[in-house]
Amino acid sequence: MKKGRQTYILEKKIYIADTATIAGVDEGKGRLRDFFDFVIDESEFGCKSHEKAEIKLRKHAIESLLKNAGINAEDVDAILGGDLLNQLVPSAFSAREFDVPFCGLYSACATFGQALATGAMLLQSGAERVVCCTSSHFATAERQYRFPLELGTQPPPTAQWTVTGAGCALLTTAKPKSRCPKITAFTLGKAIDMGLDDPNNMGAAMAPAAYDTISAHLKERGVSADYYDLIVTGDLGKLGRELLCTMLEQECGAVKDKVNDCGCMIFKDRQKCGLGGSGAGCSSLVFCSYLYKTMKEGGLKRILLVPTGAMLSKDSSLQGESIPAIAHAVAIET
Amino acid sequence: MKKGRQTYILEKKIYIADTATIAGVDEGKGRLRDFFDFVIDESEFGCKSHEKAEIKLRKHAIESLLKNAGINAEDVDAILGGDLLNQLVPSAFSAREFDVPFCGLYSACATFGQALATGAMLLQSGAERVVCCTSSHFATAERQYRFPLELGTQPPPTAQWTVTGAGCALLTTAKPKSRCPKITAFTLGKAIDMGLDDPNNMGAAMAPAAYDTISAHLKERGVSADYYDLIVTGDLGKLGRELLCTMLEQECGAVKDKVNDCGCMIFKDRQKCGLGGSGAGCSSLVFCSYLYKTMKEGGLKRILLVPTGAMLSKDSSLQGESIPAIAHAVAIET
Repeated sequence: MKKGRQTYILEKKIYIADTATIAGVDEGKGRLRDFFDFVIDESEFGCKSHEKAEIKLRKHAIESLLKNAGINAEDVDAILGGDLLNQLVPSAFSAREFDVPFCGLYSACATFGQALATGAMLLQSGAERVVCCTSSHFATAERQYRFPLELGTQPPPTAQWTVTGAGCALLTTAKPKSRCPKITAFTLGKAIDMGLDDPNNMGAAMAPAAYDTISAHLKERGVSADYYDLIVTGDLGKLGRELLCTMLEQECGAVKDKVNDCGCMIFKDRQKCGLGGSGAGCSSLVFCSYLYKTMKEGGLKRILLVPTGAMLSKDSSLQGESIPAIAHAVAIET
Repeated sequence: MKKGRQTYILEKKIYIADTATIAGVDEGKGRLRDFFDFVIDESEFGCKSHEKAEIKLRKHAIESLLKNAGINAEDVDAILGGDLLNQLVPSAFSAREFDVPFCGLYSACATFGQALATGAMLLQSGAERVVCCTSSHFATAERQYRFPLELGTQPPPTAQWTVTGAGCALLTTAKPKSRCPKITAFTLGKAIDMGLDDPNNMGAAMAPAAYDTISAHLKERGVSADYYDLIVTGDLGKLGRELLCTMLEQECGAVKDKVNDCGCMIFKDRQKCGLGGSGAGCSSLVFCSYLYKTMKEGGLKRILLVPTGAMLSKDSSLQGESIPAIAHAVAIET
């Protein structure tokens, strides 16, 4: 059921029946280490390139998910996923390992939000089980968007740290045996471009998109920020989160205690990961580990997950373009 | 309603209420010139780069669609689209021009099939009007996947010619005034990799994916190839089409008269465009012009549109990977 311009309230019950995560070396030393299913011990994960390592990360995550859920690939109706690399190579090349229909999605680091929303749509259209998976890798992202690691380039003060890892979630319409979080609504975001053009300050470019989507969601669903225990963005980082809170507080009053960001949650301060984590794997890794497990145990009842993405490419920045950003919101409740 | 593993039969009526197209210089000299809404007269379309030209092509196509349909951007619930460029820059950067929610999709040249299927899902979930748009540009694709045009590289004999242009379609649940084609079913494809690794022979890499999806569609829907007036793939080109027919004929008997390919339909033989057109804009340009208009006039009643994609990147080929391919099928009937 559509409600307002951008928000859809789901008629069928869409359960998040299970999740699986695989985290990189640094993520495994971070705040959420105890919540990950698996942590790799070197960044190439036994492969000949970091790109091949990212493919393997996804394959491992999806296999773990099937194992956790006690199902086979043929029980899955579709794999929906994306990543940051050109032509979604990690997503497509891991999908070929499974005999399952595949749809590639891209909203940069907001892709996990788009994947959960698309999964909900597909389940409403008759599918029974859908896997949503996003990933990123520090070394592949640095090489593609910035410089190869071998150059030893200094990151500027507003830079964030692309998360290495993959998170995936199994959505189903079949009532699971144990109590599971459900997707109850989603809000599709617009491409918002405020004219910022610094590819090393993506938190500032993305904050207005997060604000736009959260504000639309609350208005259209007809709830206040208090309805949620937590509003959690994808990878705004410390600066972007500040900017978002400033914008939201003009509308909703004090929200700082209620708003967090996956990029601010994943690393410890002493890890020196810039202003926080980023990447298409950031929100999926944090949601599928800490947030999902906390919801299952009753520590959080209603969250609004708002993955955020900056849709630039190396070429667009070199051609003098500013950075359009996007955020898709997914309401998850127990 | 799901039927079989990959196929969805739509419960709501999903009309393709209108289309719009903008074609490149060579496409405008091709077989379908009289069916395009607009043909550009130089490949940069008044922009400083071919990449910016592709953004402008999409913007023009979407604006034309809104004009053709007599609606405003605020009447549209979502723009669903994709293209071939890194990080979907043309899609994202054209989306920021409209105050409309946006979802980026990527199945390489099969993206138009994924867009129509996703549009149908979103309309089933409550949206009223969705725009599906894909594009490609010869010069941006050559530079990104192969070599900049300035090098004057010779294309090998199995090469295809990336189509310059954008096609977009307006999907709606509201019954239009005139008789319009409807989307009645779709089949999501799998990532199929038969081990082929020649990035200059994508027709051969994609034909098995087209076969796999068409075969699944016919079996799951419980119809024979004769149900359709035309089964039309995206951009297999002459060689890929031959391969597909050989595979299909082992299963369905003679199908050659019934199977065509957008890549084989768009250029004239004397244009020397290799084995035919390709690109994410190929199937959208041919469907939204010639096929749609012929259906509206009653010349075709039932078609199965099967856009096909090769999901390689420059890096994946340089790292010695083979080419996974995918095809999504959409049944369109009047």
